Amino acid sequence: MSSLVRTGISLDRELLARFDQVIRRKGYGSRSEAIRDLVREHSVEADVAHNKAIVGTLTVVYDHHQPRLAERLIEAQHHYHGKVLATTHVHLDARHCLEVVIVKGRSAEVRHFAEHILSLRGVKHGKLIMTTTGKRLK
Amino acid sequence: MSSLVRTGISLDRELLARFDQVIRRKGYGSRSEAIRDLVREHSVEADVAHNKAIVGTLTVVYDHHQPRLAERLIEAQHHYHGKVLATTHVHLDARHCLEVVIVKGRSAEVRHFAEHILSLRGVKHGKLIMTTTGKRLK
Amino acid sequence: MSSLVRTGISLDRELLARFDQVIRRKGYGSRSEAIRDLVREHSVEADVAHNKAIVGTLTVVYDHHQPRLAERLIEAQHHYHGKVLATTHVHLDARHCLEVVIVKGRSAEVRHFAEHILSLRGVKHGKLIMTTTGKRLK
Amino acid sequence: MSSLVRTGISLDRELLARFDQVIRRKGYGSRSEAIRDLVREHSVEADVAHNKAIVGTLTVVYDHHQPRLAERLIEAQHHYHGKVLATTHVHLDARHCLEVVIVKGRSAEVRHFAEHILSLRGVKHGKLIMTTTGKRLK
Repeated sequence: MSSLVRTGISLDRELLARFDQVIRRKGYGSRSEAIRDLVREHSVEADVAHNKAIVGTLTVVYDHHQPRLAERLIEAQHHYHGKVLATTHVHLDARHCLEVVIVKGRSAEVRHFAEHILSLRGVKHGKLIMTTTGKRLK
Repeated sequence: MSSLVRTGISLDRELLARFDQVIRRKGYGSRSEAIRDLVREHSVEADVAHNKAIVGTLTVVYDHHQPRLAERLIEAQHHYHGKVLATTHVHLDARHCLEVVIVKGRSAEVRHFAEHILSLRGVKHGKLIMTTTGKRLK
Repeated sequence: MSSLVRTGISLDRELLARFDQVIRRKGYGSRSEAIRDLVREHSVEADVAHNKAIVGTLTVVYDHHQPRLAERLIEAQHHYHGKVLATTHVHLDARHCLEVVIVKGRSAEVRHFAEHILSLRGVKHGKLIMTTTGKRLK
Repeated sequence: MSSLVRTGISLDRELLARFDQVIRRKGYGSRSEAIRDLVREHSVEADVAHNKAIVGTLTVVYDHHQPRLAERLIEAQHHYHGKVLATTHVHLDARHCLEVVIVKGRSAEVRHFAEHILSLRGVKHGKLIMTTTGKRLK
Protein backbone atom coordinates (compact mmCIF):
# COMPACT_ATOMS: atom_id res chain seq x y z
CA MET A 1 0.00 0.00 0.00
CA SER A 2 1.25 3.41 -0.74
CA SER A 3 1.09 6.17 1.86
CA LEU A 4 1.42 9.81 0.95
CA VAL A 5 3.57 12.35 2.77
CA ARG A 6 3.90 16.03 2.15
CA THR A 7 7.13 17.95 1.76
CA GLY A 8 7.77 21.62 1.09
CA ILE A 9 10.38 23.27 -1.03
CA SER A 10 11.32 26.91 -1.32
CA LEU A 11 12.47 28.22 -4.64
CA ASP A 12 12.78 31.40 -6.60
CA ARG A 13 9.50 32.98 -7.72
CA GLU A 14 10.68 33.45 -11.32
CA LEU A 15 12.03 29.92 -11.60
CA LEU A 16 8.70 28.57 -10.38
CA ALA A 17 6.75 30.73 -12.84
CA ARG A 18 8.91 29.41 -15.67
CA PHE A 19 8.40 25.81 -14.48
CA ASP A 20 4.62 26.30 -14.34
CA GLN A 21 4.63 27.65 -17.88
CA VAL A 22 6.64 24.75 -19.31
CA ILE A 23 4.64 22.01 -17.59
CA ARG A 24 1.32 23.57 -18.64
CA ARG A 25 2.47 23.38 -22.25
CA LYS A 26 3.40 19.73 -21.72
CA GLY A 27 -0.12 19.04 -20.44
CA TYR A 28 0.38 18.67 -16.68
CA GLY A 29 -2.68 19.33 -14.54
CA SER A 30 -0.72 20.10 -11.37
CA ARG A 31 2.72 21.27 -10.29
CA SER A 32 2.88 18.52 -7.69
CA GLU A 33 2.46 15.83 -10.35
CA ALA A 34 5.22 17.38 -12.48
CA ILE A 35 7.67 17.46 -9.55
CA ARG A 36 6.78 13.87 -8.63
CA ASP A 37 7.70 12.91 -12.20
CA LEU A 38 11.13 14.54 -11.82
CA VAL A 39 11.69 12.71 -8.53
CA ARG A 40 10.64 9.38 -10.07
CA GLU A 41 12.90 9.89 -13.07
CA HIS A 42 15.78 10.62 -10.69
CA SER A 43 14.99 7.41 -8.82
CA VAL A 44 14.90 5.28 -11.98
CA GLU A 45 18.26 6.71 -13.07
CA ALA A 46 19.72 5.71 -9.71
CA ASP A 47 18.32 2.18 -10.08
CA VAL A 48 19.89 1.86 -13.51
CA ALA A 49 23.25 3.20 -12.27
CA HIS A 50 23.32 0.79 -9.33
CA ASN A 51 22.33 -2.35 -11.23
CA LYS A 52 18.94 -2.80 -9.56
CA ALA A 53 16.03 -4.75 -11.02
CA ILE A 54 14.45 -2.78 -13.83
CA VAL A 55 12.19 -3.38 -16.81
CA GLY A 56 13.72 -2.73 -20.21
CA THR A 57 11.99 -2.32 -23.52
CA LEU A 58 14.24 -2.96 -26.47
CA THR A 59 13.00 -1.69 -29.83
CA VAL A 60 14.68 -3.10 -32.94
CA VAL A 61 14.07 -2.65 -36.64
CA TYR A 62 15.30 -5.49 -38.79
CA ASP A 63 15.20 -6.91 -42.27
CA HIS A 64 13.40 -10.24 -42.18
CA HIS A 65 15.03 -11.30 -45.45
CA GLN A 66 18.32 -11.59 -43.58
CA PRO A 67 19.09 -15.33 -43.44
CA ARG A 68 18.80 -16.94 -39.99
CA LEU A 69 18.08 -13.64 -38.21
CA ALA A 70 14.58 -14.59 -37.02
CA GLU A 71 15.85 -17.74 -35.34
CA ARG A 72 18.80 -15.88 -33.80
CA LEU A 73 16.42 -13.34 -32.29
CA ILE A 74 14.26 -16.08 -30.78
CA GLU A 75 17.30 -17.98 -29.55
CA ALA A 76 18.68 -14.87 -27.83
CA GLN A 77 15.40 -14.29 -26.06
CA HIS A 78 15.37 -17.89 -24.80
CA HIS A 79 18.96 -17.94 -23.61
CA TYR A 80 18.53 -14.72 -21.69
CA HIS A 81 18.83 -15.23 -17.94
CA GLY A 82 16.35 -12.50 -17.15
CA LYS A 83 12.75 -12.84 -18.08
CA VAL A 84 11.25 -11.78 -21.38
CA LEU A 85 7.76 -10.57 -20.43
CA ALA A 86 6.37 -9.97 -23.91
CA THR A 87 7.37 -9.37 -27.52
CA THR A 88 5.40 -7.28 -30.00
CA HIS A 89 5.93 -7.48 -33.72
CA VAL A 90 4.91 -4.88 -36.30
CA HIS A 91 5.33 -5.18 -40.08
CA LEU A 92 6.69 -1.80 -41.23
CA ASP A 93 6.87 -2.62 -44.93
CA ALA A 94 7.53 -5.60 -47.19
CA ARG A 95 11.06 -5.89 -45.89
CA HIS A 96 11.27 -4.37 -42.43
CA CYS A 97 9.91 -5.51 -39.07
CA LEU A 98 9.85 -3.63 -35.81
CA GLU A 99 10.00 -5.68 -32.65
CA VAL A 100 9.63 -4.54 -29.06
CA VAL A 101 11.00 -6.94 -26.46
CA ILE A 102 10.01 -6.27 -22.85
CA VAL A 103 12.47 -7.78 -20.36
CA LYS A 104 12.91 -7.78 -16.61
CA GLY A 105 16.29 -8.08 -14.97
CA ARG A 106 19.18 -6.20 -13.44
CA SER A 107 20.24 -3.20 -15.52
CA ALA A 108 23.65 -4.65 -16.49
CA GLU A 109 22.25 -7.94 -17.77
CA VAL A 110 19.46 -6.20 -19.65
CA ARG A 111 22.04 -3.92 -21.30
CA HIS A 112 24.17 -6.92 -22.22
CA PHE A 113 21.15 -8.68 -23.73
CA ALA A 114 20.35 -5.56 -25.77
CA GLU A 115 23.92 -5.17 -27.04
CA HIS A 116 23.90 -8.75 -28.25
CA ILE A 117 20.62 -8.32 -30.16
CA LEU A 118 21.76 -5.02 -31.66
CA SER A 119 25.01 -6.55 -32.93
CA LEU A 120 23.21 -9.17 -35.06
CA ARG A 121 23.56 -8.78 -38.81
CA GLY A 122 20.30 -7.56 -40.33
CA VAL A 123 19.28 -5.58 -37.24
CA LYS A 124 19.24 -2.08 -38.70
CA HIS A 125 18.59 0.08 -35.69
CA GLY A 126 17.53 -0.25 -32.12
CA LYS A 127 17.41 1.34 -28.75
CA LEU A 128 16.95 0.23 -25.17
CA ILE A 129 15.09 2.17 -22.54
CA MET A 130 14.93 1.22 -18.88
CA THR A 131 12.09 1.91 -16.54
CA THR A 132 10.83 0.86 -13.15
CA THR A 133 9.43 -2.53 -12.14
CA GLY A 134 6.81 -0.52 -10.28
CA LYS A 135 8.17 -1.74 -6.94
CA ARG A 136 9.73 1.41 -5.61
CA LEU A 137 8.14 3.97 -7.84
CA LYS A 138 4.90 4.76 -6.12
CA MET B 1 15.45 -2.70 -53.63
CA SER B 2 18.69 -2.10 -51.83
CA SER B 3 21.99 -1.96 -53.67
CA LEU B 4 25.31 -2.19 -51.91
CA VAL B 5 28.26 0.08 -52.50
CA ARG B 6 31.72 -0.06 -51.00
CA THR B 7 33.59 2.80 -49.40
CA GLY B 8 36.99 2.91 -47.78
CA ILE B 9 38.17 4.82 -44.75
CA SER B 10 41.65 5.33 -43.43
CA LEU B 11 42.18 5.55 -39.73
CA ASP B 12 44.78 5.10 -37.07
CA ARG B 13 45.92 1.52 -36.45
CA GLU B 14 45.56 1.80 -32.67
CA LEU B 15 42.10 3.36 -32.89
CA LEU B 16 40.97 0.55 -35.16
CA ALA B 17 42.40 -2.11 -32.82
CA ARG B 18 40.50 -0.56 -29.93
CA PHE B 19 37.29 -0.45 -31.99
CA ASP B 20 37.66 -4.12 -32.94
CA GLN B 21 38.13 -5.05 -29.29
CA VAL B 22 35.02 -3.17 -28.13
CA ILE B 23 32.73 -4.47 -30.88
CA ARG B 24 33.88 -8.06 -30.35
CA ARG B 25 32.85 -7.76 -26.70
CA LYS B 26 29.46 -6.44 -27.82
CA GLY B 27 28.99 -9.45 -30.02
CA TYR B 28 29.58 -8.08 -33.52
CA GLY B 29 30.63 -10.60 -36.15
CA SER B 30 32.23 -8.05 -38.46
CA ARG B 31 33.73 -4.56 -38.39
CA SER B 32 31.71 -3.56 -41.43
CA GLU B 33 28.43 -4.35 -39.64
CA ALA B 34 29.50 -2.30 -36.60
CA ILE B 35 30.37 0.74 -38.73
CA ARG B 36 27.09 0.43 -40.64
CA ASP B 37 25.31 0.57 -37.25
CA LEU B 38 27.09 3.83 -36.41
CA VAL B 39 26.14 5.31 -39.79
CA ARG B 40 22.49 4.22 -39.37
CA GLU B 41 22.32 5.67 -35.86
CA HIS B 42 23.71 8.95 -37.23
CA SER B 43 21.03 8.91 -39.92
CA VAL B 44 18.18 8.28 -37.46
CA GLU B 45 19.40 11.14 -35.27
CA ALA B 46 19.30 13.44 -38.30
CA ASP B 47 15.75 12.31 -39.13
CA VAL B 48 14.64 13.06 -35.57
CA ALA B 49 16.34 16.48 -35.61
CA HIS B 50 14.74 17.45 -38.92
CA ASN B 51 11.19 16.33 -38.12
CA LYS B 52 11.07 13.48 -40.61
CA ALA B 53 8.73 10.50 -40.41
CA ILE B 54 9.91 8.13 -37.69
CA VAL B 55 8.51 5.32 -35.57
CA GLY B 56 8.35 5.95 -31.85
CA THR B 57 7.89 3.46 -29.06
CA LEU B 58 6.60 5.01 -25.90
CA THR B 59 6.98 2.92 -22.74
CA VAL B 60 4.88 3.95 -19.73
CA VAL B 61 4.39 2.46 -16.29
CA TYR B 62 1.14 3.41 -14.62
CA ASP B 63 -1.10 2.63 -11.70
CA HIS B 64 -4.35 1.21 -13.01
CA HIS B 65 -6.12 2.12 -9.74
CA GLN B 66 -5.85 5.77 -10.80
CA PRO B 67 -9.42 6.89 -11.59
CA ARG B 68 -10.15 7.55 -15.29
CA LEU B 69 -6.53 6.96 -16.37
CA ALA B 70 -7.26 3.93 -18.57
CA GLU B 71 -9.87 5.84 -20.57
CA ARG B 72 -7.60 8.88 -20.87
CA LEU B 73 -4.83 6.71 -22.29
CA ILE B 74 -7.18 5.20 -24.86
CA GLU B 75 -8.61 8.61 -25.72
CA ALA B 76 -5.15 10.07 -26.29
CA GLN B 77 -4.24 7.24 -28.62
CA HIS B 78 -7.42 7.81 -30.65
CA HIS B 79 -7.05 11.56 -30.90
CA TYR B 80 -3.49 11.30 -32.08
CA HIS B 81 -3.07 12.51 -35.66
CA GLY B 82 -0.27 10.07 -36.41
CA LYS B 83 -0.94 6.39 -36.45
CA VAL B 84 -0.79 4.08 -33.45
CA LEU B 85 0.51 0.83 -34.93
CA ALA B 86 0.19 -1.38 -31.86
CA THR B 87 -0.08 -1.30 -28.08
CA THR B 88 1.28 -3.97 -25.75
CA HIS B 89 0.18 -4.31 -22.17
CA VAL B 90 2.03 -6.13 -19.38
CA HIS B 91 0.83 -6.57 -15.78
CA LEU B 92 3.85 -5.82 -13.61
CA ASP B 93 2.16 -6.43 -10.27
CA ALA B 94 -1.27 -6.06 -8.66
CA ARG B 95 -1.14 -2.32 -9.09
CA HIS B 96 1.20 -1.45 -11.94
CA CYS B 97 0.89 -1.87 -15.68
CA LEU B 98 3.51 -1.34 -18.34
CA GLU B 99 2.31 -0.29 -21.75
CA VAL B 100 4.29 0.11 -24.95
CA VAL B 101 2.64 2.24 -27.62
CA ILE B 102 4.15 2.06 -31.11
CA VAL B 103 3.38 5.15 -33.19
CA LYS B 104 4.32 6.44 -36.60
CA GLY B 105 4.53 10.14 -37.41
CA ARG B 106 6.82 13.11 -37.69
CA SER B 107 9.24 13.39 -34.79
CA ALA B 108 7.71 16.60 -33.37
CA GLU B 109 4.16 15.25 -33.27
CA VAL B 110 5.31 11.94 -31.78
CA ARG B 111 7.18 13.85 -29.06
CA HIS B 112 4.11 15.96 -28.36
CA PHE B 113 1.94 12.86 -28.10
CA ALA B 114 4.44 11.32 -25.65
CA GLU B 115 4.60 14.46 -23.49
CA HIS B 116 0.84 14.47 -23.19
CA ILE B 117 0.69 10.81 -22.10
CA LEU B 118 3.56 11.27 -19.64
CA SER B 119 1.85 14.25 -18.01
CA LEU B 120 -1.25 12.26 -17.06
CA ARG B 121 -1.81 11.71 -13.35
CA GLY B 122 -1.10 8.10 -12.45
CA VAL B 123 1.55 7.63 -15.12
CA LYS B 124 4.58 6.94 -12.96
CA HIS B 125 7.40 6.83 -15.44
CA GLY B 126 7.95 6.63 -19.13
CA LYS B 127 10.31 7.18 -21.97
CA LEU B 128 10.10 7.65 -25.69
CA ILE B 129 12.56 6.29 -28.20
CA MET B 130 12.53 7.07 -31.88
CA THR B 131 13.70 4.80 -34.65
CA THR B 132 13.48 4.45 -38.39
CA THR B 133 10.41 3.63 -40.47
CA GLY B 134 12.75 1.36 -42.41
CA LYS B 135 12.42 3.57 -45.48
CA ARG B 136 15.85 5.11 -45.63
CA LEU B 137 17.73 2.80 -43.34
CA LYS B 138 18.79 0.03 -45.59
CA MET C 1 16.69 40.48 -7.03
CA SER C 2 15.39 37.00 -6.36
CA SER C 3 12.42 36.38 -4.13
CA LEU C 4 11.70 32.99 -2.61
CA VAL C 5 8.30 31.30 -2.56
CA ARG C 6 7.31 28.04 -0.94
CA THR C 7 5.42 25.23 -2.59
CA GLY C 8 4.33 21.86 -1.25
CA ILE C 9 4.23 18.51 -2.97
CA SER C 10 2.72 15.26 -1.81
CA LEU C 11 4.39 12.05 -2.77
CA ASP C 12 4.69 8.47 -1.72
CA ARG C 13 6.60 7.83 1.53
CA GLU C 14 8.75 5.09 0.00
CA LEU C 15 9.60 7.14 -3.08
CA LEU C 16 10.68 10.02 -0.87
CA ALA C 17 12.81 7.73 1.33
CA ARG C 18 14.54 6.41 -1.78
CA PHE C 19 15.11 9.97 -3.06
CA ASP C 20 16.62 11.03 0.26
CA GLN C 21 18.97 8.07 0.19
CA VAL C 22 20.20 8.77 -3.35
CA ILE C 23 20.74 12.51 -2.83
CA ARG C 24 22.59 11.92 0.45
CA ARG C 25 25.01 9.68 -1.43
CA LYS C 26 25.47 12.41 -4.03
CA GLY C 27 26.35 14.88 -1.28
CA TYR C 28 23.22 17.05 -1.02
CA GLY C 29 22.71 18.81 2.29
CA SER C 30 18.96 19.25 1.87
CA ARG C 31 16.04 17.75 0.00
CA SER C 32 14.84 21.18 -1.04
CA GLU C 33 18.15 21.92 -2.79
CA ALA C 34 18.00 18.59 -4.65
CA ILE C 35 14.45 19.25 -5.90
CA ARG C 36 15.42 22.78 -6.94
CA ASP C 37 18.20 21.25 -9.03
CA LEU C 38 15.68 19.00 -10.81
CA VAL C 39 13.43 21.98 -11.49
CA ARG C 40 16.35 24.05 -12.83
CA GLU C 41 17.52 21.21 -15.05
CA HIS C 42 13.97 20.93 -16.43
CA SER C 43 14.00 24.65 -17.11
CA VAL C 44 17.33 24.59 -18.94
CA GLU C 45 16.12 21.70 -21.12
CA ALA C 46 13.08 23.77 -22.07
CA ASP C 47 15.29 26.77 -22.95
CA VAL C 48 17.43 24.57 -25.18
CA ALA C 49 14.36 23.04 -26.87
CA HIS C 50 12.82 26.45 -27.55
CA ASN C 51 15.95 28.16 -28.91
CA LYS C 52 16.37 30.61 -26.03
CA ALA C 53 19.60 32.33 -25.09
CA ILE C 54 21.92 29.85 -23.38
CA VAL C 55 25.60 29.48 -22.59
CA GLY C 56 27.38 26.59 -24.26
CA THR C 57 30.73 25.10 -23.40
CA LEU C 58 32.28 23.18 -26.25
CA THR C 59 35.12 20.83 -25.36
CA VAL C 60 37.34 19.62 -28.19
CA VAL C 61 40.44 17.49 -28.33
CA TYR C 62 42.62 18.04 -31.36
CA ASP C 63 45.97 17.26 -32.87
CA HIS C 64 47.95 20.47 -33.21
CA HIS C 65 50.18 18.88 -35.86
CA GLN C 66 47.21 18.99 -38.23
CA PRO C 67 48.04 21.63 -40.86
CA ARG C 68 45.97 24.82 -40.70
CA LEU C 69 43.72 23.55 -37.89
CA ALA C 70 44.76 26.15 -35.33
CA GLU C 71 43.94 29.04 -37.67
CA ARG C 72 40.63 27.41 -38.67
CA LEU C 73 39.65 27.14 -35.02
CA ILE C 74 40.42 30.80 -34.42
CA GLU C 75 38.66 31.84 -37.62
CA ALA C 76 35.51 29.93 -36.65
CA GLN C 77 35.44 31.63 -33.26
CA HIS C 78 35.74 35.03 -34.88
CA HIS C 79 33.09 34.47 -37.52
CA TYR C 80 30.60 33.24 -34.98
CA HIS C 81 27.65 35.60 -34.63
CA GLY C 82 27.14 34.82 -30.99
CA LYS C 83 29.74 35.81 -28.47
CA VAL C 84 32.73 33.74 -27.46
CA LEU C 85 33.18 34.57 -23.78
CA ALA C 86 36.43 32.70 -23.15
CA THR C 87 38.64 29.93 -24.47
CA THR C 88 40.83 27.70 -22.32
CA HIS C 89 43.65 25.66 -23.71
CA VAL C 90 45.30 22.63 -22.08
CA HIS C 91 48.26 20.63 -23.46
CA LEU C 92 47.33 16.98 -22.98
CA ASP C 93 50.51 15.53 -24.42
CA ALA C 94 53.10 16.32 -27.10
CA ARG C 95 50.50 16.00 -29.82
CA HIS C 96 47.06 16.65 -28.35
CA CYS C 97 45.40 19.81 -27.10
CA LEU C 98 42.11 20.19 -25.28
CA GLU C 99 40.23 23.42 -25.76
CA VAL C 100 37.10 24.61 -24.02
CA VAL C 101 35.20 27.38 -25.82
CA ILE C 102 32.53 29.18 -23.82
CA VAL C 103 29.90 30.80 -26.03
CA LYS C 104 26.67 32.68 -25.51
CA GLY C 105 23.85 32.62 -28.03
CA ARG C 106 20.57 30.98 -28.98
CA SER C 107 20.69 27.21 -28.68
CA ALA C 108 20.37 26.56 -32.44
CA GLU C 109 23.24 28.87 -33.41
CA VAL C 110 25.46 27.51 -30.63
CA ARG C 111 24.76 23.97 -31.86
CA HIS C 112 25.58 24.98 -35.42
CA PHE C 113 28.83 26.59 -34.31
CA ALA C 114 29.75 23.38 -32.44
CA GLU C 115 28.93 21.13 -35.41
CA HIS C 116 31.20 23.20 -37.61
CA ILE C 117 34.14 23.00 -35.18
CA LEU C 118 33.64 19.27 -34.64
CA SER C 119 33.67 18.60 -38.39
CA LEU C 120 37.17 20.05 -38.87
CA ARG C 121 39.88 17.58 -39.81
CA GLY C 122 42.21 16.99 -36.89
CA VAL C 123 39.51 17.54 -34.26
CA LYS C 124 39.46 14.10 -32.65
CA HIS C 125 36.57 14.34 -30.26
CA GLY C 126 34.33 16.89 -28.74
CA LYS C 127 31.09 17.55 -27.01
CA LEU C 128 28.83 20.50 -26.40
CA ILE C 129 26.86 21.13 -23.24
CA MET C 130 24.36 23.89 -22.79
CA THR C 131 23.54 25.66 -19.57
CA THR C 132 21.78 28.75 -18.34
CA THR C 133 22.84 32.35 -18.79
CA GLY C 134 21.84 32.78 -15.17
CA LYS C 135 18.96 35.04 -16.16
CA ARG C 136 16.01 32.83 -15.39
CA LEU C 137 17.66 30.24 -13.23
CA LYS C 138 17.55 31.72 -9.81
CA MET D 1 53.56 7.98 -33.62
CA SER D 2 50.37 7.19 -35.38
CA SER D 3 50.20 4.87 -38.36
CA LEU D 4 47.25 4.83 -40.72
CA VAL D 5 45.52 1.72 -42.00
CA ARG D 6 42.71 1.44 -44.51
CA THR D 7 39.51 -0.53 -44.06
CA GLY D 8 36.55 -0.95 -46.38
CA ILE D 9 32.89 -1.16 -45.55
CA SER D 10 29.98 -2.06 -47.76
CA LEU D 11 26.68 -0.36 -47.17
CA ASP D 12 23.47 0.48 -48.90
CA ARG D 13 23.69 3.13 -51.62
CA GLU D 14 20.72 5.11 -50.29
CA LEU D 15 22.00 5.04 -46.70
CA LEU D 16 25.36 6.33 -47.87
CA ALA D 17 23.74 9.12 -49.94
CA ARG D 18 21.76 10.19 -46.87
CA PHE D 19 24.92 10.12 -44.73
CA ASP D 20 26.81 12.25 -47.24
CA GLN D 21 23.97 14.79 -47.25
CA VAL D 22 23.84 15.10 -43.46
CA ILE D 23 27.61 15.40 -42.98
CA ARG D 24 27.89 18.01 -45.73
CA ARG D 25 25.33 20.12 -43.88
CA LYS D 26 27.39 19.71 -40.70
CA GLY D 27 30.47 20.96 -42.51
CA TYR D 28 32.54 17.80 -43.03
CA GLY D 29 35.02 17.94 -45.87
CA SER D 30 35.25 14.16 -46.30
CA ARG D 31 33.23 11.04 -45.59
CA SER D 32 36.27 9.33 -44.14
CA GLU D 33 36.67 12.05 -41.52
CA ALA D 34 32.99 11.77 -40.55
CA ILE D 35 33.21 7.99 -40.09
CA ARG D 36 36.42 8.36 -38.08
CA ASP D 37 34.50 10.71 -35.78
CA LEU D 38 31.80 8.07 -35.23
CA VAL D 39 34.45 5.46 -34.46
CA ARG D 40 36.22 7.79 -32.02
CA GLU D 41 32.96 8.66 -30.27
CA HIS D 42 32.24 4.93 -29.91
CA SER D 43 35.69 4.46 -28.42
CA VAL D 44 35.28 7.28 -25.89
CA GLU D 45 31.92 5.86 -24.80
CA ALA D 46 33.59 2.51 -24.19
CA ASP D 47 36.36 4.19 -22.13
CA VAL D 48 33.74 5.94 -20.00
CA ALA D 49 31.75 2.71 -19.51
CA HIS D 50 34.85 0.76 -18.46
CA ASN D 51 36.27 3.31 -16.04
CA LYS D 52 39.35 4.16 -18.06
CA ALA D 53 41.34 7.38 -17.76
CA ILE D 54 39.44 10.22 -19.36
CA VAL D 55 39.38 14.01 -19.28
CA GLY D 56 36.22 15.58 -17.92
CA THR D 57 35.08 19.16 -18.26
CA LEU D 58 32.57 20.18 -15.65
CA THR D 59 30.60 23.34 -16.35
CA VAL D 60 28.79 24.94 -13.41
CA VAL D 61 26.78 28.11 -13.01
CA TYR D 62 26.65 29.46 -9.49
CA ASP D 63 25.63 32.43 -7.43
CA HIS D 64 28.72 33.98 -5.89
CA HIS D 65 26.60 35.67 -3.19
CA GLN D 66 26.01 32.23 -1.68
CA PRO D 67 27.96 32.22 1.61
CA ARG D 68 31.02 29.97 1.69
CA LEU D 69 30.42 28.54 -1.79
CA ALA D 70 33.61 29.91 -3.35
CA GLU D 71 35.79 28.31 -0.68
CA ARG D 72 33.87 25.03 -0.93
CA LEU D 73 34.48 24.92 -4.68
CA ILE D 74 38.20 25.50 -4.20
CA GLU D 75 38.37 22.97 -1.38
CA ALA D 76 36.66 20.31 -3.52
CA GLN D 77 39.14 20.87 -6.33
CA HIS D 78 42.05 20.48 -3.94
CA HIS D 79 40.76 17.36 -2.24
CA TYR D 80 40.12 15.63 -5.52
CA HIS D 81 42.40 12.65 -6.03
CA GLY D 82 42.54 13.08 -9.81
CA LYS D 83 44.20 16.09 -11.28
CA VAL D 84 42.52 19.41 -11.96
CA LEU D 85 44.25 20.62 -15.12
CA ALA D 86 42.70 24.07 -15.35
CA THR D 87 39.75 26.16 -14.20
CA THR D 88 38.17 28.97 -16.21
CA HIS D 89 35.94 31.56 -14.67
CA VAL D 90 33.45 33.80 -16.51
CA HIS D 91 31.29 36.52 -14.96
CA LEU D 92 27.83 36.06 -16.46
CA ASP D 93 26.16 38.94 -14.64
CA ALA D 94 26.35 40.75 -11.31
CA ARG D 95 25.29 37.64 -9.48
CA HIS D 96 26.18 34.59 -11.57
CA CYS D 97 29.50 32.97 -12.42
CA LEU D 98 30.21 30.20 -14.85
CA GLU D 99 33.15 27.98 -14.11
CA VAL D 100 34.66 25.24 -16.23
CA VAL D 101 36.83 22.74 -14.37
CA ILE D 102 38.99 20.45 -16.50
CA VAL D 103 39.95 17.25 -14.68
CA LYS D 104 41.80 14.08 -15.52
CA GLY D 105 41.03 10.77 -13.87
CA ARG D 106 39.12 7.53 -14.16
CA SER D 107 35.53 8.06 -15.29
CA ALA D 108 33.98 6.93 -11.98
CA GLU D 109 36.06 9.28 -9.83
CA VAL D 110 35.49 12.19 -12.20
CA ARG D 111 31.73 11.55 -12.04
CA HIS D 112 31.86 11.42 -8.25
CA PHE D 113 33.77 14.69 -8.12
CA ALA D 114 31.16 16.29 -10.41
CA GLU D 115 28.23 15.02 -8.33
CA HIS D 116 29.76 16.52 -5.22
CA ILE D 117 30.24 19.94 -6.83
CA LEU D 118 26.75 19.91 -8.32
CA SER D 119 25.17 19.14 -4.94
CA LEU D 120 26.58 22.28 -3.31
CA ARG D 121 24.05 24.92 -2.31
CA GLY D 122 24.27 27.89 -4.65
CA VAL D 123 25.34 25.83 -7.64
CA LYS D 124 22.42 26.48 -9.97
CA HIS D 125 23.13 24.20 -12.87
CA GLY D 126 25.91 22.13 -14.27
CA LYS D 127 26.88 19.32 -16.54
CA LEU D 128 29.84 17.02 -16.98
CA ILE D 129 31.16 15.81 -20.28
CA MET D 130 33.89 13.24 -20.70
CA THR D 131 36.37 13.05 -23.51
CA THR D 132 39.61 11.36 -24.38
CA THR D 133 43.04 11.95 -22.86
CA GLY D 134 44.31 11.77 -26.42
CA LYS D 135 46.18 8.53 -25.68
CA ARG D 136 44.12 6.07 -27.62
CA LEU D 137 42.19 8.39 -29.85
CA LYS D 138 44.45 8.91 -32.79
